[in-house]
Amino acid sequence: MQPRRDEEFAKVVVDVLREARLARGWSLERLGDEAGLHRTSIGLIERGKRRMTLDVAARLAWAVDMSLSEVVAAAEDRLLHG
Amino acid sequence: MQPRRDEEFAKVVVDVLREARLARGWSLERLGDEAGLHRTSIGLIERGKRRMTLDVAARLAWAVDMSLSEVVAAAEDRLLHG
Repeated sequence: MQPRRDEEFAKVVVDVLREARLARGWSLERLGDEAGLHRTSIGLIERGKRRMTLDVAARLAWAVDMSLSEVVAAAEDRLLHG
Repeated sequence: MQPRRDEEFAKVVVDVLREARLARGWSLERLGDEAGLHRTSIGLIERGKRRMTLDVAARLAWAVDMSLSEVVAAAEDRLLHG
């Protein structure tokens, strides 16, 4: 069965955020501190075990100095151009 | 108490989506049909009673022929310029 388009999309947004975390050399704990979220919660999201709400997505984007529209546009671009 | 910035942000994203629905003259039921979601679920989101996940935000944006980055950028612009 093909993955649903919206779930695939959400997964790529998570990938973009995860890569931004790793580019800074940040642990889940450090990102959690910066975003005001628990590392366990971010870990569940990164492993695809928990769906991310829009407000959490915004907090994660802001923590890595991006706007959420930048993160989402990067995900859209990746899905369009591979 | 001031509303949290991420909650305020999510609320404006919901406003942008709601206005796009109303601009089409669509009921909650029609949007639900287009997005593959239940009208009750969309109603709860529009009234701020339920937080929207990223995949649901994408489905709602696509249903009104927008990309999610367009919706999010419109919300960011509104928060920045009032």
